[in-house]
Amino acid sequence: MPLLVMKFGGTSVASPDRIRRAAKRVGREVANGYDVIVIVSAMAGETNRLVGYVNEIAPFYDAREYDAVVSSGENVTAGLMALTLQEMDIPARSWQGWQVPLRTSSAHGSARIEEIPTDNINSRFAQGMKVAVVAGFQGISPEGRITTLGRGGSDTTAVAFAAAFGAERCDIYTDVDGVYTTDPRISDKARKLDRIAFEEMLELASLGAKVLQTRSVELAMRYHVRLRVLSSFEDNNESAGTLVCDEEDIVESKVVSGVAYSRDEAKMTLISVADRPGIAAAIFGPLAEAGVNVDMIVQNIAEDGRTDMTFSCPTDQVARAEKAMRAAKERGEVNFHDLVADKDVAKVSVVGIGMRSHAGVAAKMFQSLSREGINIKVITTSEIKISVLIDRKYMELAVQALHDAFELEKAG
Amino acid sequence: MPLLVMKFGGTSVASPDRIRRAAKRVGREVANGYDVIVIVSAMAGETNRLVGYVNEIAPFYDAREYDAVVSSGENVTAGLMALTLQEMDIPARSWQGWQVPLRTSSAHGSARIEEIPTDNINSRFAQGMKVAVVAGFQGISPEGRITTLGRGGSDTTAVAFAAAFGAERCDIYTDVDGVYTTDPRISDKARKLDRIAFEEMLELASLGAKVLQTRSVELAMRYHVRLRVLSSFEDNNESAGTLVCDEEDIVESKVVSGVAYSRDEAKMTLISVADRPGIAAAIFGPLAEAGVNVDMIVQNIAEDGRTDMTFSCPTDQVARAEKAMRAAKERGEVNFHDLVADKDVAKVSVVGIGMRSHAGVAAKMFQSLSREGINIKVITTSEIKISVLIDRKYMELAVQALHDAFELEKAG
Repeated sequence: MPLLVMKFGGTSVASPDRIRRAAKRVGREVANGYDVIVIVSAMAGETNRLVGYVNEIAPFYDAREYDAVVSSGENVTAGLMALTLQEMDIPARSWQGWQVPLRTSSAHGSARIEEIPTDNINSRFAQGMKVAVVAGFQGISPEGRITTLGRGGSDTTAVAFAAAFGAERCDIYTDVDGVYTTDPRISDKARKLDRIAFEEMLELASLGAKVLQTRSVELAMRYHVRLRVLSSFEDNNESAGTLVCDEEDIVESKVVSGVAYSRDEAKMTLISVADRPGIAAAIFGPLAEAGVNVDMIVQNIAEDGRTDMTFSCPTDQVARAEKAMRAAKERGEVNFHDLVADKDVAKVSVVGIGMRSHAGVAAKMFQSLSREGINIKVITTSEIKISVLIDRKYMELAVQALHDAFELEKAG
Repeated sequence: MPLLVMKFGGTSVASPDRIRRAAKRVGREVANGYDVIVIVSAMAGETNRLVGYVNEIAPFYDAREYDAVVSSGENVTAGLMALTLQEMDIPARSWQGWQVPLRTSSAHGSARIEEIPTDNINSRFAQGMKVAVVAGFQGISPEGRITTLGRGGSDTTAVAFAAAFGAERCDIYTDVDGVYTTDPRISDKARKLDRIAFEEMLELASLGAKVLQTRSVELAMRYHVRLRVLSSFEDNNESAGTLVCDEEDIVESKVVSGVAYSRDEAKMTLISVADRPGIAAAIFGPLAEAGVNVDMIVQNIAEDGRTDMTFSCPTDQVARAEKAMRAAKERGEVNFHDLVADKDVAKVSVVGIGMRSHAGVAAKMFQSLSREGINIKVITTSEIKISVLIDRKYMELAVQALHDAFELEKAG
């Protein structure tokens, strides 16, 4: 029997009525001949309520107890979903993480999945069960304690189940209807993508398009799980949503698939640093220790043995970064003339696997920004992404201009 | 190290603040030199919320899924209690039922405890843990599914842990400060009992004094667990609350310990039934099948081969009882002249282990009621209880008169 994994997020199971709507979607796939594994999140608001209790009681909590408390929301939804399916005469039962058992590392609060045995659930399918409902976000540590996978962890649970059971596809039902060429709030020309490659999705996710947990996309890429993102609140036909898939499954791909942005960036420049071996480590070591998430790094050409070093980080980490750099200077580890922070910048990126085989993307991007009079402050590139830092006030304009320039409103 | 079991009900853990207050009580016992096993209920209102979801989704639910859903409330409290104790620098951790594992029968919704292994928790005590917090009300079936023990099941969990671990005492913290000689709302002379025998507590509990789950008292009696009921909301000294204990631990017992009542009783009489062997079975078989909870049964002296048969049952089961009896008559299984129901009666009982060795209790009870002009409609007796049915309008008067007659306002 072919198998599907269907995952429903918190807003999709926020009430008994919504659980019923989700169960109807499951019922349609059962009618289509599938066995289904359903992964559920906690009802919307529930995890926050539980986290609130924990923070009220113990701001510096024991992560093992935190996990035991916050995992309970998913257990409730799993049981309610199984009951709803049974009411529709669909043979179903619920599993909590420890019952599978979904084995994880002991890293409470952000555990990694290590093993998902399939025999238990598969033997139930063999006996006629049609739907296994599994509480997402949770597992069991080698010590027998409950673990959780971190925020958004139910996406990862879903992909891991799809990989372990060899599912035909993993459908992630959420409150958006797919992945867009850019944020529709910024450009009304934004177009829903029918397909996107894993690599592109990873770049978009880490750039702030918060549709899927990054880890779930990595896992899907590694195990070639066909991942579909679609809306719980619309009628979906077979081509609904966005399929996140291997590059070779994308027949006609455009050079650029999407334009992403990140608003709260800051640019920092160390002026006149000695250009010597080990200088990068001397700078970025202390920053990492101080918990600064450095993103882009640019080193200028050296002149007279000295250079400028520029990096970006989230705006709210600027003070921390400055403190770390001044301390390193006092310790004599780094010498620089000045440290300049610009908190009014934003990052705009174009992403697309087509870039690998197409020259001229960067040039087209820079021309397009130049035509709008937008000055580029920092540039970084990867194989499938070009990012620039610009003044924040031009961010929306830049996104719209790039969306137009690469004709993203048109289907591939 | 001596061990205590402390159980906190839903109102005692209804908020982080109340959990903190409960944890302080635990901390005092730890300071007194005890290892402590804490059994917690769900936060007040939580179980009702979850049961509400289940009933909304599936009125005729799969009890296995019901149990998976409703047991989650206790898991939350257990984690929060452990965190609170840790904040007070008391080494503590939580256990869910399946982690102990507390093994039960497969009777979902009203499972019976079968085994509580002690090695896991005891090895933690040996390593320096001072408090094991255990989620009440739940266990795990032989099939590995979560079970619940029925409403009030956390009391039973507490007593079972006290028995398994050989606890010095099992303290049940609740919203009343002990067991009274009668309901203080009916008699302002009602006095809190310092001690009460298990047998008496069982009679009082089943008569409607809903302080402890009946099953927990049975279990405590069988395993000689010293059980104390006391208030979460008052400062308790060493003699606080009521100790439910073996008969021999009660030094000076009075003949009568308490006066109990039950308001919603009905009296039904089958007039002129054939007085033949098997007639009782022919009547009470169909009633049991119809789900009628028959309580008292009285058969009058036969005359001319016919007799009257009187029984009592809850008021709201009268229609069902009548239907069952008329059907039995139509099938020719029972022949009676008439069926008379009196829905305006109440049951009043005096309870006391001292009755076993004292004659004259019944006579004193009847005289006392007679003095108030109260007519007795039905009488039944057991070794330690005498119950009468009377007109409901006299119920309060009867309770007060009996409380006076047996001088229950005075300590033993």
